[in-house]
Amino acid sequence: MTKPHLLADDILTGNRRALARAITLIESGREDHRAEARALLEAVGKTGRQSLRIGLSGTPGVGKSTFTESFGMMLADMGLRLAVLAVDPSSTLSGGSILGDKTRMERLTRHPNAFIRPSPSQSALGGVARRTREVIALCEAAGFDIVIVETVGVGQSEVMVSEMTDIFTLLLAPAGGDELQGVKRGIMEIADLILVNKADGDLKPQAIRTCADYAGALRLMRARPGDPDTFPKAMTISAIEESGLQDAWSEMQALTDWRKDHGVWESKRKAQAALWFTREVERGWLSRLDADPARRALRDQLGAEVSAGRISPDAAAAELLAQMDR
Amino acid sequence: MTKPHLLADDILTGNRRALARAITLIESGREDHRAEARALLEAVGKTGRQSLRIGLSGTPGVGKSTFTESFGMMLADMGLRLAVLAVDPSSTLSGGSILGDKTRMERLTRHPNAFIRPSPSQSALGGVARRTREVIALCEAAGFDIVIVETVGVGQSEVMVSEMTDIFTLLLAPAGGDELQGVKRGIMEIADLILVNKADGDLKPQAIRTCADYAGALRLMRARPGDPDTFPKAMTISAIEESGLQDAWSEMQALTDWRKDHGVWESKRKAQAALWFTREVERGWLSRLDADPARRALRDQLGAEVSAGRISPDAAAAELLAQMDR
Repeated sequence: MTKPHLLADDILTGNRRALARAITLIESGREDHRAEARALLEAVGKTGRQSLRIGLSGTPGVGKSTFTESFGMMLADMGLRLAVLAVDPSSTLSGGSILGDKTRMERLTRHPNAFIRPSPSQSALGGVARRTREVIALCEAAGFDIVIVETVGVGQSEVMVSEMTDIFTLLLAPAGGDELQGVKRGIMEIADLILVNKADGDLKPQAIRTCADYAGALRLMRARPGDPDTFPKAMTISAIEESGLQDAWSEMQALTDWRKDHGVWESKRKAQAALWFTREVERGWLSRLDADPARRALRDQLGAEVSAGRISPDAAAAELLAQMDR
Repeated sequence: MTKPHLLADDILTGNRRALARAITLIESGREDHRAEARALLEAVGKTGRQSLRIGLSGTPGVGKSTFTESFGMMLADMGLRLAVLAVDPSSTLSGGSILGDKTRMERLTRHPNAFIRPSPSQSALGGVARRTREVIALCEAAGFDIVIVETVGVGQSEVMVSEMTDIFTLLLAPAGGDELQGVKRGIMEIADLILVNKADGDLKPQAIRTCADYAGALRLMRARPGDPDTFPKAMTISAIEESGLQDAWSEMQALTDWRKDHGVWESKRKAQAALWFTREVERGWLSRLDADPARRALRDQLGAEVSAGRISPDAAAAELLAQMDR
């Protein structure tokens, strides 16, 4: 492995192979790689470069890959440099990965302004968030204008992605009116932009109706403090016909500009950093729970009592915690 | 509030009003109520009574309430005593609640063998799991034969419910073949029974096809260690026409019997208890992170540095954790 500071220099000049190698380093579970990754992040962390981080979520089948390809090509053709990352917590269970089928983004993959990184499989769930944050940091250091972080609507992944991006976009398919309620309520509350895809051919009228339904639902929700009244916003697009993409991008820019003008962008990034700090502290603190051998032995013993049904899980936990005070 | 031990006596004799009051006590955030709740759980915890705990999940619109009503009525009419609880982590965000519209289960609500408890709104997310486990424990002590724990497919709620139930049932609507992939993969792996609802009228052929698709997908998945080859199983039902419900119940019983015969039931409950113990210990441990004033001050200070962008979240976390060692 190249020395971290050499790799860092290459990343800062936008060398794509160096970036790919650095990401592999970050994704590694090996202890020595971990130390190198920390040194690397430290070395690249001083640039102050900021990308626009766009979170993108949608269940399989809504056309996420097609959208990313069309939208990404539009941006790349404008001369913007763009990285596409994936967060797939389900890979912990299934070993699967999104963005795995790169052929779905054939044009974007070959575009000189685009960098696409599929999600690694088999990473520990707790590590997904940290790894993704670190990869985003590398991409910012590498000077990308835009980082798209794509996820499927599994578990907490959408919330996780919204916590590390500036704009959260939800991609939906046209649906019957009854299905409106099927969208997770929490997601409506974190989305900045709802894009109803497949507004083309026979589905176009349905896409327009679906969009109107969501627009109505969004109006019913309380305005988000610190955002303009017009957001969150619902729009129709067609990733296949490449229509509406320019409008979607204009809205993202308008929201970004508004937030930057009103100090919201900065305060949101600060809040996100504070949140990551808390998460990392808690992770580290939890890892100490088992650091003391006597405590570990007591924990094992109480765990056995719990399994045998001789003590309730809650009572056993209370006893262990009480012992720690001594 | 009645003394915990008096309430406990009433619960053990199956007094429904006592049970409802005890659940309110458990759901309370007040410290003195918490102490009473602990005493109450201790007092009722010795019965050794076990209910069959059935987890039930499905997105809004699949007919969960109709299913719970039809299925619950069938069980209640058989003379089985049944409690229906709800886990709705989204209520933290939206203040909403499932099972809130009791009129949807009009018949079941009035059945003498049934007890229905909607999910409380506005509970802290971390507390949802513990509260639900405690309410299940109360229902078991009250002598219910069956406890149905219902959830919507939001966040980690399905995994949470599967961790505290014996049989996990996923309710689905008929769908086009393309949509099969839309079901969260992780859920396929925790479900014991997949029920494709709305196998009635015009949707019947589609329900049968959908069921065949899922059955095929389940066959492709590796067999779950310790379960018969025939599970997880996919079936069609119609909650409205009340067809297939008897078959679904027979399968649940068959799986329960098999697991009890092979020691799997017992080992699964033990593993669940061990997991709850771990969760509670971690929760308690995390609450100590801020117990020491000096540590809290350092944490606040580092948090401010992080927000100001003077130090990365990860570096700050590492520094705080290093200070704790001194």
